[in-house]
Amino acid sequence: MKRIRVGMVGYKFMGKAHSHAYRDIPMFFPNAILPVMQTVCGRDVEGVATAAKQFGWNGYVTDWKELVRHNDIDLIDINAPSDIHKDIALAAAEAGKHIFCEKPLALTLKDAREMLAAAETAGVKHMIGFNYRFAPAVQLARKLIQEGRLGQIYHFRGWFLQDWIIDPAFPLVWRLQKKIAGSGSHGDLGAHIIDLAHFLVGDMREVIGMSETFIKERPLPDSMSGLSAKGDENAEKGPVTVDDATLFLARFENGALGSFEATRFAAGHRCTNAFEINGSKGSVKFDFERMNELQVYFTDDREDVQGFRRVLATDPAHAYAEAWWPPGHTIGFEHTFIHETLELLQAIAEDRQPEPNFRDGVKCQQALEAVDLSIAEKRWVRLEEM
Amino acid sequence: MKRIRVGMVGYKFMGKAHSHAYRDIPMFFPNAILPVMQTVCGRDVEGVATAAKQFGWNGYVTDWKELVRHNDIDLIDINAPSDIHKDIALAAAEAGKHIFCEKPLALTLKDAREMLAAAETAGVKHMIGFNYRFAPAVQLARKLIQEGRLGQIYHFRGWFLQDWIIDPAFPLVWRLQKKIAGSGSHGDLGAHIIDLAHFLVGDMREVIGMSETFIKERPLPDSMSGLSAKGDENAEKGPVTVDDATLFLARFENGALGSFEATRFAAGHRCTNAFEINGSKGSVKFDFERMNELQVYFTDDREDVQGFRRVLATDPAHAYAEAWWPPGHTIGFEHTFIHETLELLQAIAEDRQPEPNFRDGVKCQQALEAVDLSIAEKRWVRLEEM
Amino acid sequence: MKRIRVGMVGYKFMGKAHSHAYRDIPMFFPNAILPVMQTVCGRDVEGVATAAKQFGWNGYVTDWKELVRHNDIDLIDINAPSDIHKDIALAAAEAGKHIFCEKPLALTLKDAREMLAAAETAGVKHMIGFNYRFAPAVQLARKLIQEGRLGQIYHFRGWFLQDWIIDPAFPLVWRLQKKIAGSGSHGDLGAHIIDLAHFLVGDMREVIGMSETFIKERPLPDSMSGLSAKGDENAEKGPVTVDDATLFLARFENGALGSFEATRFAAGHRCTNAFEINGSKGSVKFDFERMNELQVYFTDDREDVQGFRRVLATDPAHAYAEAWWPPGHTIGFEHTFIHETLELLQAIAEDRQPEPNFRDGVKCQQALEAVDLSIAEKRWVRLEEM
Amino acid sequence: MKRIRVGMVGYKFMGKAHSHAYRDIPMFFPNAILPVMQTVCGRDVEGVATAAKQFGWNGYVTDWKELVRHNDIDLIDINAPSDIHKDIALAAAEAGKHIFCEKPLALTLKDAREMLAAAETAGVKHMIGFNYRFAPAVQLARKLIQEGRLGQIYHFRGWFLQDWIIDPAFPLVWRLQKKIAGSGSHGDLGAHIIDLAHFLVGDMREVIGMSETFIKERPLPDSMSGLSAKGDENAEKGPVTVDDATLFLARFENGALGSFEATRFAAGHRCTNAFEINGSKGSVKFDFERMNELQVYFTDDREDVQGFRRVLATDPAHAYAEAWWPPGHTIGFEHTFIHETLELLQAIAEDRQPEPNFRDGVKCQQALEAVDLSIAEKRWVRLEEM
Repeated sequence: MKRIRVGMVGYKFMGKAHSHAYRDIPMFFPNAILPVMQTVCGRDVEGVATAAKQFGWNGYVTDWKELVRHNDIDLIDINAPSDIHKDIALAAAEAGKHIFCEKPLALTLKDAREMLAAAETAGVKHMIGFNYRFAPAVQLARKLIQEGRLGQIYHFRGWFLQDWIIDPAFPLVWRLQKKIAGSGSHGDLGAHIIDLAHFLVGDMREVIGMSETFIKERPLPDSMSGLSAKGDENAEKGPVTVDDATLFLARFENGALGSFEATRFAAGHRCTNAFEINGSKGSVKFDFERMNELQVYFTDDREDVQGFRRVLATDPAHAYAEAWWPPGHTIGFEHTFIHETLELLQAIAEDRQPEPNFRDGVKCQQALEAVDLSIAEKRWVRLEEM
Repeated sequence: MKRIRVGMVGYKFMGKAHSHAYRDIPMFFPNAILPVMQTVCGRDVEGVATAAKQFGWNGYVTDWKELVRHNDIDLIDINAPSDIHKDIALAAAEAGKHIFCEKPLALTLKDAREMLAAAETAGVKHMIGFNYRFAPAVQLARKLIQEGRLGQIYHFRGWFLQDWIIDPAFPLVWRLQKKIAGSGSHGDLGAHIIDLAHFLVGDMREVIGMSETFIKERPLPDSMSGLSAKGDENAEKGPVTVDDATLFLARFENGALGSFEATRFAAGHRCTNAFEINGSKGSVKFDFERMNELQVYFTDDREDVQGFRRVLATDPAHAYAEAWWPPGHTIGFEHTFIHETLELLQAIAEDRQPEPNFRDGVKCQQALEAVDLSIAEKRWVRLEEM
Repeated sequence: MKRIRVGMVGYKFMGKAHSHAYRDIPMFFPNAILPVMQTVCGRDVEGVATAAKQFGWNGYVTDWKELVRHNDIDLIDINAPSDIHKDIALAAAEAGKHIFCEKPLALTLKDAREMLAAAETAGVKHMIGFNYRFAPAVQLARKLIQEGRLGQIYHFRGWFLQDWIIDPAFPLVWRLQKKIAGSGSHGDLGAHIIDLAHFLVGDMREVIGMSETFIKERPLPDSMSGLSAKGDENAEKGPVTVDDATLFLARFENGALGSFEATRFAAGHRCTNAFEINGSKGSVKFDFERMNELQVYFTDDREDVQGFRRVLATDPAHAYAEAWWPPGHTIGFEHTFIHETLELLQAIAEDRQPEPNFRDGVKCQQALEAVDLSIAEKRWVRLEEM
Repeated sequence: MKRIRVGMVGYKFMGKAHSHAYRDIPMFFPNAILPVMQTVCGRDVEGVATAAKQFGWNGYVTDWKELVRHNDIDLIDINAPSDIHKDIALAAAEAGKHIFCEKPLALTLKDAREMLAAAETAGVKHMIGFNYRFAPAVQLARKLIQEGRLGQIYHFRGWFLQDWIIDPAFPLVWRLQKKIAGSGSHGDLGAHIIDLAHFLVGDMREVIGMSETFIKERPLPDSMSGLSAKGDENAEKGPVTVDDATLFLARFENGALGSFEATRFAAGHRCTNAFEINGSKGSVKFDFERMNELQVYFTDDREDVQGFRRVLATDPAHAYAEAWWPPGHTIGFEHTFIHETLELLQAIAEDRQPEPNFRDGVKCQQALEAVDLSIAEKRWVRLEEM
């Protein structure tokens, strides 16, 4: 297979990021299978037509069911709102298409498992969009852990801190409505740190959480797309039905202790997706706002010069770096999607499942719901209960 | 009252820090009551004699019971191991002496309450050594919150991370033995972040925790004083009976969410006593390893220049700064004790209780034990249960 | 004019960055004139054919003279080695093409002036590739200064620190040969900080410099393209004919004092293109290794919370940010080229000269040569002498 | 010799720092010779009496000539204004007293040399107060260089940035008057970075500088002591006769290139005494505002984890650390004076000259005046000319 024809559903924030990845792959990773930007799908015909032209898709449709049936599509890329992920994925699997689904995989663990089963039954490749794994600095953290250079892991601390809804006048966009978004900070932000914990430390054994919605009601929005929306403080208000912040503690199977926090109420944090991991031989620290950097500490450094090293992951020794620019020339958010897409294409070429795939999506959903249950019942919940 | 005669029990790490505070007060805060370094007490006659001479005490004794009875002592300063705090404090109160007690106030909440009651009955001043409150940067955080400049508080995140026992060959010093230390990281380090949370955010409503002892057995030490000790990997081993790490979640009475972690297994962290607080109008961040700095963010900063400010708390506008050096000339760990002692002396001069006092010690102990209970019973514990 | 057909000479480091900019413009700045990637030119037919395919050029040629004559080309984009810039630019001007030339404009001030004159005579648009101006954080610095928010400027401090040739076994690539590169660190790195100083502070009045070649001889390289090359320590050696490091002091016309340093011998610095500017009302600090950040200080901040703010220039209030991702989602090195190209396209659309243009290229060359003269004659040199 | 009796002239900023050092030495370095705080001297009888009592001096006098003659004084410690250093030092030498002189040694190189000659003739110990050498992080930098761990030194970059007179209404204190202070930023701040360059890199061969007084006139002050003074914008004004900022370039004898800047007009910098040194095997960075930290880079770190390490110089492996607190517990500005004083006492005990001594003071003065000459004559000046 020399090329793969993509049909993509949704063209807003994530759809834009995915489109750009398809555009950049052939230039920066010319040995990868060529992704053909065949058809983009969106409900609003004018919007999708504009997006198709702007992003470089060959065509567009307004009905995802039609898209999924097309013979000239090999891969369905799902960037639609979370509540429709399952239906599209099931249809795509049934049609024998490979599936690339943005996170969260589904609104519920049950749905997520159904999606995984469908994809496995269909024998297609399936991938989930945990893009932060693909920052070179995160890849370096993974490598250090896999090679045993941090020793036994004792601690994982993960935060995803934002502040975009701290203003009480910010309107009730879809991301603040449970029936569409499924969850608030927990599913949106927490899902990413849970996946990073899975990727870097391993499976969890048990969790206990705490959650809060600080602003209970918000003005109804005039428009509701993407992350931004105009609000009017005097407008009619509706109830916020998702969490503003969710925190939880976890024990990992390997004995490590985990602490997680996802919030949209951390003033001054635009996108602090950050973690620290402490092991018996060393530690690493990462903050997505400085995504090219990993702070690394080794206990066996010479006694008088021990300290966290600020490693800029742009050297040839770092993942993906040689495809880009010389050392010290940093990359940005969108590159995580390019690397992620590359993994998908390479997996297809090598006839293996990409990583992370629907199994990782299910595992993340399992953790999310275990935390939800622990909050509802105010008790520790073992992952195996779910 | 123009001077106050001090009798101090214990002369190791804390005793040294306290002694230095007494020495520096008259030079840098000449308007304060003069602390007279009357008598120091320690069990080892040679050791206490040396310390007395080196630190500048007028005399020494080896029996604290004798010290407490002395007529020429106004204040008893307790730096002895935690298991003896109560007995000394009760005796001091009975003798009508003011009491300055290092944290933790006692090994149990019950004991702590007994100490508070005794001090109150005796009508003496009582203070507890939560010295980190007295870093000027922490005072600034307090001021910003008190003045409403951070708005309503949503989040408190506190860590106290160290790595001094990460080596499994590090010996079983007294701080790792429950019967003497009472607790491990939780009582030693966690107590400080709990107190800072009380100081900055307020009272907690409920907590749930998690704890671990990563290294279960350690070599018996040759000598056991202070923080350092020589170990021998081939030596006989004994069980570690305290926690290496304790984490907990908390809800504050004012609705804020709290996350706490105390560990001695965070490689690369020598003394990261750190917190971040997010409010509706701004945020602050502090890390004791850079104790002169407070990171401050305001949501109403002009749109194009919003960002955390690194405030160096050495300007005349900052607490205690004018007593020291010109702006930009930083102070160190030991200065927190000088400021703390100043508060004690000022409280005595003004005939009021100093802050923090035994009430704060009790409150801290209450939180510590609530967390312990939540760990033992694997459930949320309300502070009012204790 | 709705589209502009580009002919590009050179397809290595800079050619790749430019190609990517042309690819991304229509997607992220859809209102701009459409750049058509018409023809790429390179001497090696196999190389240029591969690059054309990989980068997305419609065709390729091996002779720039042919390219310049093509009727279907509106803009000549020069990324060839510095010693050929002039010939191409003069021919392009004569052919009435707009010109986009990478820095340095030419090997000598005389040549640069000739190029400017030719472009002006021809009445074409001319632009020079000082891409660092187009980092949003640098644009913010410019805005603060232009709006008077830093007050009168007292100090400019600029460094461009790298370490890629610190190993004496690194071979004698073309960038280390005066006849091709014209200059070493001074022209390669120093040119960028000189341009930033011009952009942010203004013109210089006089300069004095100092220069050094630490490693006088290096192994002859096996291959010589781009920044990387394989060397062999035992290989025959040749003389390094450019500077490893050049520093200079400057007085600006507005009275500010400047300090400049360009070096390839600063171990640990991959690409520290950094500056600090101090004014009567505030200061800014920038480091390209954290290119999304500007440190900003204002003297009129409230007394107790003065400090440098870390502004992440990814908010809607920042230049170009709305075309990209939500706040906190950073961009990378390559985006500076996209913004730079956008300025070129907008200038063409508005029938004005883009900025920076050949005048800025000449001004930079003038400063570079003034510094060279000051080194040769060991004296202060006034810019007007040149 | 078991003790040394000190007579100190001047009791303001430096006198206070020195007094505190004498007080702390016996407690933290009990094996050192005991400094006896015998007599303090100041012109204002009330002021000196108060200082004597507050700082702990046994007695006081108002005439330094009397002090120098006292039989019960072994060491004269000079913290008086710079214009009187020489007279006191000469008298002290003649009286056979050891001499500890604050920097600058004198107002002129000629005077400085006279002082050195007098001290050498008298055979007394002489020390100069370049206290920044004694920050443990600076000591670590020195150690790394001495042990060859940074390889051959290529670059020294030193800044001393302050902002305390950036307000034009700040009055004309003595530090802004040439006849008393001798020099402005150059002698006050530049002297420190020159000494650090000497200490860390070695001697200079030639220099060229640039200087500016941004605010030419200032209100006459009401009071003129120390660093602070009250000004009145409408008050009569007088001319500022010293430099606000001085920059210079230098070549070191060992081939390294140096860049120096001292200014009091860098908004946001309270006390940024900072340097970076780049060598063939590594680099170090220091900033006094974070005086406990040294950033260290090694070229031979493993390829994927190269980066500057933030070393907190509070471990037992670091200079002086064991005398203070456990790792991670930082020290402050005043500790540099304690360590400096310790060196003086140890040198006396070992019957050797302390470091830095008057030779270092002369060398610093030589560099300062060479820069002044280079500014006056607008040319490079060789140090050997002076």
